[in-house]
Amino acid sequence: MNALEKLFIRIVQRVNINLRELEFDARPYVWDLIPKNQMTKFYAFYGITPDHPLNLQFRHSGLAGSYFLGQCRVSNSLLYKCDVRGDELKKKGDKFQFKNFNIPVSKDEEIVIEDSAFVKTLIHNYSHDPETLEKFFIKDTISTHYANIHGAPSSGCFLGPFSTVDLTTMRDCIIGTFSYVQAGEISHLNIDPGTVWVRSPDSFNFLYHYPLKKLKDYIYFEAESLPQGIFIDFMESRKEDFQRVFDVVNIEPYTNVPTTASLDRYAVIKPKTDIGENVLISQRAYLENSYLGKGANAQENCFIINSRLEGYNVTAHGAKIIEADLGQNVFVGFNSFLRGQPESRLTIDKESIIMPHTIVDIAEPLTIPPGQLVWGLITNRDDLETNSISISELSKINTRYSKGNMFFEGSGASFVSAFQGRIHHILEANGAFFNSLDNSGPGHAQKNQNMSFNTIQPYPRGDQEGLFPTILIQP
Amino acid sequence: MNALEKLFIRIVQRVNINLRELEFDARPYVWDLIPKNQMTKFYAFYGITPDHPLNLQFRHSGLAGSYFLGQCRVSNSLLYKCDVRGDELKKKGDKFQFKNFNIPVSKDEEIVIEDSAFVKTLIHNYSHDPETLEKFFIKDTISTHYANIHGAPSSGCFLGPFSTVDLTTMRDCIIGTFSYVQAGEISHLNIDPGTVWVRSPDSFNFLYHYPLKKLKDYIYFEAESLPQGIFIDFMESRKEDFQRVFDVVNIEPYTNVPTTASLDRYAVIKPKTDIGENVLISQRAYLENSYLGKGANAQENCFIINSRLEGYNVTAHGAKIIEADLGQNVFVGFNSFLRGQPESRLTIDKESIIMPHTIVDIAEPLTIPPGQLVWGLITNRDDLETNSISISELSKINTRYSKGNMFFEGSGASFVSAFQGRIHHILEANGAFFNSLDNSGPGHAQKNQNMSFNTIQPYPRGDQEGLFPTILIQP
Repeated sequence: MNALEKLFIRIVQRVNINLRELEFDARPYVWDLIPKNQMTKFYAFYGITPDHPLNLQFRHSGLAGSYFLGQCRVSNSLLYKCDVRGDELKKKGDKFQFKNFNIPVSKDEEIVIEDSAFVKTLIHNYSHDPETLEKFFIKDTISTHYANIHGAPSSGCFLGPFSTVDLTTMRDCIIGTFSYVQAGEISHLNIDPGTVWVRSPDSFNFLYHYPLKKLKDYIYFEAESLPQGIFIDFMESRKEDFQRVFDVVNIEPYTNVPTTASLDRYAVIKPKTDIGENVLISQRAYLENSYLGKGANAQENCFIINSRLEGYNVTAHGAKIIEADLGQNVFVGFNSFLRGQPESRLTIDKESIIMPHTIVDIAEPLTIPPGQLVWGLITNRDDLETNSISISELSKINTRYSKGNMFFEGSGASFVSAFQGRIHHILEANGAFFNSLDNSGPGHAQKNQNMSFNTIQPYPRGDQEGLFPTILIQP
Repeated sequence: MNALEKLFIRIVQRVNINLRELEFDARPYVWDLIPKNQMTKFYAFYGITPDHPLNLQFRHSGLAGSYFLGQCRVSNSLLYKCDVRGDELKKKGDKFQFKNFNIPVSKDEEIVIEDSAFVKTLIHNYSHDPETLEKFFIKDTISTHYANIHGAPSSGCFLGPFSTVDLTTMRDCIIGTFSYVQAGEISHLNIDPGTVWVRSPDSFNFLYHYPLKKLKDYIYFEAESLPQGIFIDFMESRKEDFQRVFDVVNIEPYTNVPTTASLDRYAVIKPKTDIGENVLISQRAYLENSYLGKGANAQENCFIINSRLEGYNVTAHGAKIIEADLGQNVFVGFNSFLRGQPESRLTIDKESIIMPHTIVDIAEPLTIPPGQLVWGLITNRDDLETNSISISELSKINTRYSKGNMFFEGSGASFVSAFQGRIHHILEANGAFFNSLDNSGPGHAQKNQNMSFNTIQPYPRGDQEGLFPTILIQP
C-alpha cells in the first residue's frame, strides 16, 4: 500500500470517528470515488495575480485538478479536482458586520484544510463564522461529486453528491444528496437527501423536501456504487469538451471579450456565445450558443446552453440553464437544473429568484412571471403554481406559510431582504457594476483578467505516487 | 521601471564590477538580449521524480523557460530559457576523487545561483571544484545565446554565444563567442572568440584557434546587436517545431520507445526516428528521420537530422549532426556542427572523437577513419588532414606537437585517457550500459522515464510582472 492509500484510509477513519454518533460509515460511499490513478493522471493548477496574495502550501498531501486564488494551506490532505477560491479573503483591518457587532479583522484571512478528502468539489471564499474570521478551515471532511462548501468552516463531515452547505459552519454532519443547507451553526445533524433548508435563527426558516422518488431520476447515490441519474449523465456527456482546455498550455484567447469582462482560461466557450460588458465567466463554466448581457456572471461549474440572459444575472456554482430566456436580474441558485426544450423554451421574467437546488424540467413551454421566488421540482404549470410565490406576497408573511412540500415560518420580509442583499453583493463582488469611466466598482470580472496559471503534477512513480511535495510560496 | 528591469540593471552592474580589470562593459551586449515581454510570455517548468530530491526556491527572481531536476536555489536572479540540471548532484557520503585525494562529501550537493542572468543557457550538474564539493554555484554571471556552463562554479563572468566552460571553476572571465574552455581554475581571463582550450595543469595542454574570418559565417556577435550567422539561422528555422511540445500539457507519447530508453516530453521527434535500447533523449533535443542505436544519447539542445548513429554514441549538448553516419562509440562534443549534404554524406567511423566545438561542413562526401581525434573547422579532405590525428598516434606524444592552428604539449596518453574516461562516464551516467536482466547500471535513460513536469508562470501584471513568487519545495 503506498502513501496515497494510507492517507485516504486515515481520512476516512477520522471522518467516521467524527460521525460515530450518527452511526455512519463513509468508507463504502467513497472508497471507489477517487480512482487512485486519477490522482497521478491529473495535474493541479493555481492562479497567480498581483491582486490575490498566495502562500499555497501542501504537506504530505495529495491533490488533483485544483484552482486556488489567494492564500492557501493544505495539510495531510487528499483533494481531487477541487476548487478552493480564495479571492474574497478578508484582509487585516477589514470590518466584519455580524448582527450588531462590527468586528475588525486582526490578520489576513487564511485558508486551512487538514486531513480532508474532496471529490470534484467547489469550496469557496470567505469565512462567515464570526468566531473564526481569520480562518477559512475545513478539517477531516469527505465530500462527493460536485458537492459545494461555500464560504465555510466545517469539520468531520460527509457531503453527498450535488449537496451544498452555504455561508456556514458545520460540525460532524452528514449532508444528503442534492441537499442545500444554509442554516448557520449546525452540528451532529443527518440531513436527508433532497432537503432545501434556509434558516436565520430568530428570523426565518424555509424548508422544502424533494419527493425522493422523483429526485432519484435526477440524482441517486447509495453505498458501494457511484452516483447516477440525469445530473451525472449531463456532466459526463460534456466531459470531453473540457479536455481541450486542460490539454493546452496557452489557449488562444476567445475574441470578442469586452475589456471590462473576464473569461477564465479553463472555461469552455462554444459558438456562438456573446459576452457583454462586466461579465464574469469562471473556470469550468460551460457556455454554448448563448448571450450574456451586461453584468451577468457564469460561476464555476455552471452550464449555459442555447440560452439568453439579459443582464445582471447570477448563475451560481453548478447551475445549469438550457433552452431558456432570463430577464434582467434573474438569480439562479447553486446546482439548479433548468431545462427547457428547443420547442418548449423556459422563460423567466425579470427579478425572479430561482432558489438554490431548484429543478425546472419541462416538456411544454413555461413562463415564470417577474418577481417570483421559485423552489423545488417543477415539470409543468401546476408544479410552478405549487412551488413559487411572488416576492411581494412573501414579504408580507410574518408567521407561517406552507405550500406543497415547502414550509416557511418567520419574517418573509427578512428572508427577501437577506436574499436580495446577497444577490446584490454577489453582483458587486463580481464586478457587474464596474464603471470604466471612473474605474469604480471593480470586481472579479476586472481583477481576474490576464491571470497566470501554474500547473503542477504529482510524483509519477514510487511510494509517493500521486502525492505532491510541499510547495511554499512566498511572494 | 518595474522590478524586472531593476533586477536586470543590478545584475549587469555586478558583472561589470567583476570585469572592471578587463575593461569590459556587458551592457551593450546584453541589454536587448532578454526581450522583457518574453519573461512574461514563457512559462518555466521543473521535473518531479522520486529519484531527484528537489527544493526549488526562487527569491525576488525572474525566470523564463527552465528545466530543473533535483535541488535548486535561485536568489535575486533573472534567468531566461535556462536549463539547470541537477540530476547528478553528489549525495552525502559520496566520495570524490581528486588527484590523490579521496574526499568524502559532507552533505547533499546544492545548486545555488545568485544575481545571475542567463539567456537560452545550459547549466549542468555536478561541481568538479574540490574546494566546493557541496555547492554548485554561479553568481552574478551573464551568458548569452546557447552558452553552456558545464558542471560548474563560476562568478562574475560574461559568456559569449555558443561558448562552453566545462568541468570548471571560473572567476571574473570573459569567454569569447564559440570558445570552449576546459582548463581548471581560470580567473581574470579574456578568452578570444573561437578558442578551443583543454588543459590539465602539469599534464597536457590542447589549444586551437578558429580562423576568425571563417568563423564569422557561422557565428558572429558584437555590441549593440544580436548574434548572427549559420548557427543562429539554423536554430531559428527549427524554432516552430518546438512550439507544439511546449503548448501541450500532456503530449501523446511517442510509440516505439523501448522500455529501457527515455524520451523527454520536451524533445521534438519527427518521422521516422528509430530509438534503440538504453537511449536517452533529453529535453529540447531535436531528432528527425534518424536512427539511434543501443546506448546512444541525444543531449539537451542537440539536433540529429537524417543521420544514423550505430550505438554508444554521445551527442553532447548543443551538437548538430546532419546527413551523417556515425559508427559505434563515436563521440561528438559540445556545440559541434557536423553538416553533410544529401548527396555528400559525412561518415565518421567507429571510436572517433569529435572534439567539442568542431565544425565539419562539407559539399563533397567525407569519411573520417576509425579512432581519430578531430577538431576545428573542416570543409574538405585537406582540412581533415590538418585538423585530425589518430588517437594511437596522439597517445605516443610526450612533448609538443602542432598541426595547423592546433598546438599540443604534454602527455598525449593522459589526454586520450582523460577523454576516453569521460566518455565512458557519460555513457554510464546516461544508462547506456543498463542491463534489464539484472537491472544493473541504470542511468538517466532509465531514471528519467515517466517524469512529472510542473509548469509555472510569472505575475502577468503589476510591478512584479515577469517575476515569480518564491516557491519552496519540501518533499
